[in-house]
Amino acid sequence: MEAFSKNQLERYPLYLKYFKELKAAGDDSVSSPKIAAKLGYSEEQVRKDLQAISTEPGLPKKGRNLQNLIDDLETFLGYKDVTSAVIVGVGHLGAALMNFPAFKEMGLEILCGFDNDPLKQGKLPNGKEVFPIEKLPNLLNRLNAHIVIIAVPSNAAQEVANLAIDSGAKALWNFAPIHLETPSNIVIENVNLASSLAVLSHRLNQQIAEEEK
Amino acid sequence: MEAFSKNQLERYPLYLKYFKELKAAGDDSVSSPKIAAKLGYSEEQVRKDLQAISTEPGLPKKGRNLQNLIDDLETFLGYKDVTSAVIVGVGHLGAALMNFPAFKEMGLEILCGFDNDPLKQGKLPNGKEVFPIEKLPNLLNRLNAHIVIIAVPSNAAQEVANLAIDSGAKALWNFAPIHLETPSNIVIENVNLASSLAVLSHRLNQQIAEEEK
Repeated sequence: MEAFSKNQLERYPLYLKYFKELKAAGDDSVSSPKIAAKLGYSEEQVRKDLQAISTEPGLPKKGRNLQNLIDDLETFLGYKDVTSAVIVGVGHLGAALMNFPAFKEMGLEILCGFDNDPLKQGKLPNGKEVFPIEKLPNLLNRLNAHIVIIAVPSNAAQEVANLAIDSGAKALWNFAPIHLETPSNIVIENVNLASSLAVLSHRLNQQIAEEEK
Repeated sequence: MEAFSKNQLERYPLYLKYFKELKAAGDDSVSSPKIAAKLGYSEEQVRKDLQAISTEPGLPKKGRNLQNLIDDLETFLGYKDVTSAVIVGVGHLGAALMNFPAFKEMGLEILCGFDNDPLKQGKLPNGKEVFPIEKLPNLLNRLNAHIVIIAVPSNAAQEVANLAIDSGAKALWNFAPIHLETPSNIVIENVNLASSLAVLSHRLNQQIAEEEK
């Protein structure tokens, strides 16, 4: 399998979103320069990115066929298959993730949640159930879910990660702002709001300093 | 001001979190090799990162003083000041962000929300108010909030960004999975769950293919 960089993988959902917008607006094809201008990438990068996932070459005059691009991207991103996940931690963030409608489009199905708080256990309005965390090992196995989404507070995250891995999880999607230690065969991807905010705040302060000069 | 890369800025909150854990466990100092091993960075990177924000040099035998590091990081990250923000879009994700307790520690205060849905307007249980979106220009100005958090669906995000910028926002924290077009003096930082999931899914598929070999 070709090696894709993290940055490259992160771009594909943005291409897909844009191509769906163009298609909805009635377009049939799109050229690399147009894509590059809209998304702020270089033309060369766009061509390389699309070549890596597309079965059909772009034509110099006509551009690339939009429907084919959409199909290729959805296949590549796994949106046409269903990947099962469970979530641990059903606080505000966990509940938001369990209710996030766009995940379904992306082929991600969050089957159920786990939380130690008895007040959060039981059926949610969306019909999904929240179980006590002791049930994770048994249910993860039975549901054949590979992905465990970690949405517990930082101080519980490593313990939850260990339990998930012992229970057979192959991938962790970690929303706790902490570095988790995991074996090398476990896939881990972090969504760290503290890191994102650090970038935003620093650039904002620079911008304000610039304006005050 | 020294130029910090995005990756470097993203690491600082993870250092801070770790140093606070060590401090809470009773430690007074920490060495670069220990930090590097824990967070999975190289020793050289750790030394460079800390040198860039710390006023005090590390001592070869004693390591760096933890409390000084914590103070320096909190100052650098702006956790000791309060930065005001407002949020547009109070669906599941927006409500989760408005209730996220960790933002307060990070110096971010989300003052109020805006949503077009009358059912979402009014006072939230946490005492914060959700206003109709028409009030954004007036309130953003009056509250002196520089950051607008965008948590609306993709198809409304560009329009909300335009309104926020016209109303005087200096920075946008965008949670909609779409590329926003903004003038160069506006700071923009994206939290894109679709991109994060693309990385996770691709690596999971690679891992599964590896195991089936």
